[in-house]
Amino acid sequence: MRFELSPIHTTRAETIASATLRVETDGEGFVEITREVERFLDRIEARDGVVLLYLRHTSASLIVQGNADRDVRTDLATALDRLAPANAGWVHEVEGPDDMPAHIKSMLNGVSLQVPVRDGQMTLGTWQGVYVAEHRARAHRREVMLQFLGTCGET
Amino acid sequence: MRFELSPIHTTRAETIASATLRVETDGEGFVEITREVERFLDRIEARDGVVLLYLRHTSASLIVQGNADRDVRTDLATALDRLAPANAGWVHEVEGPDDMPAHIKSMLNGVSLQVPVRDGQMTLGTWQGVYVAEHRARAHRREVMLQFLGTCGET
Amino acid sequence: MRFELSPIHTTRAETIASATLRVETDGEGFVEITREVERFLDRIEARDGVVLLYLRHTSASLIVQGNADRDVRTDLATALDRLAPANAGWVHEVEGPDDMPAHIKSMLNGVSLQVPVRDGQMTLGTWQGVYVAEHRARAHRREVMLQFLGTCGET
Repeated sequence: MRFELSPIHTTRAETIASATLRVETDGEGFVEITREVERFLDRIEARDGVVLLYLRHTSASLIVQGNADRDVRTDLATALDRLAPANAGWVHEVEGPDDMPAHIKSMLNGVSLQVPVRDGQMTLGTWQGVYVAEHRARAHRREVMLQFLGTCGET
Repeated sequence: MRFELSPIHTTRAETIASATLRVETDGEGFVEITREVERFLDRIEARDGVVLLYLRHTSASLIVQGNADRDVRTDLATALDRLAPANAGWVHEVEGPDDMPAHIKSMLNGVSLQVPVRDGQMTLGTWQGVYVAEHRARAHRREVMLQFLGTCGET
Repeated sequence: MRFELSPIHTTRAETIASATLRVETDGEGFVEITREVERFLDRIEARDGVVLLYLRHTSASLIVQGNADRDVRTDLATALDRLAPANAGWVHEVEGPDDMPAHIKSMLNGVSLQVPVRDGQMTLGTWQGVYVAEHRARAHRREVMLQFLGTCGET
């Protein structure tokens, strides 16, 4: 059978808990924040719902990608460099040759995403991790807004 | 006038109903899941709110795209192949030549999205359908988490 | 320290307020809708929560990008044209040479996103603006669904 729907699980839309996660990047590359999001969920005693992530920048992005083989992230960075190369005749050059490629990569990947939460845990797939993708060459301080929507507290 | 805002419609944020949709893909290509999401909304007697979709994989993606002309999807697959070609000197080759391109396509398209729901129906545009995009060459079983947030049940 | 989490702010998930924003585009390019979303939030007296945006089209997209230097948007359009060129042997040509590239750009950028709201204001980064990206050559009328989820009204 091509499609199969699991039983339905229902909870109340009760609370929205929000916080800002500050992340120091090391320049171009991916910083995993899966554990930090889990810590946020622990701290608010999240039960069931969804966690929304939002990145407040235009030269970095948020992605969900493979957390097993480090080579995957190396190739993801290479792929982005090929799609948005430096010195490709961009008009916007005032902030350095890595800035315009960073904007393009940020647009393609996006700055918002959401992950379901069940029993206080993100329901990530086996190989999924949540990453801040830094697209500028130099280290930056980035802000990710975290919002949990659902039920919190002891059962 | 460049902008025009419709009247506001208000409902209560009451319920979060969640389920997992299992989807068998046929290998590289697009599987429409619009009807399956509609069935989920029917089953929970969704009224007004929003449906959140999340794909638990790193080599497939979720998109909203044209459901009229099949040629559009053919070209979308071609475009993705050009943006993330096989045998392009990727470091990560252990899972086959189609694996790294699949990760890149998944990153570009993304694995989460949301669609508003009104009177139990997704407010899709006339030509929009919701698709699981399979980026691996071979058939796979994929899991899409569906979450409706809003009001359910008879009025 | 690489990571730092701010204090938590909590509100109730009370109301979902929805409206449709109609946007006239001038053909290929970006139309900023930040002010229009702010007006929607004002009108519903939004306090704390999140605003969800959804575009009902398959040849345009929604992005958050730099609103300071106009050159950035010029280069973003150039980048998209390079990633999805016209006359590149697409099968789907019946709606004109700009149609298939528009579908590809829409897939890459996406049609849904969300931004947190605090004290009635989107918590955009300093340089962030919300844009409808028109990918067709000619002017179009586009519909963006706006949904605020959270608390409304005077404190």
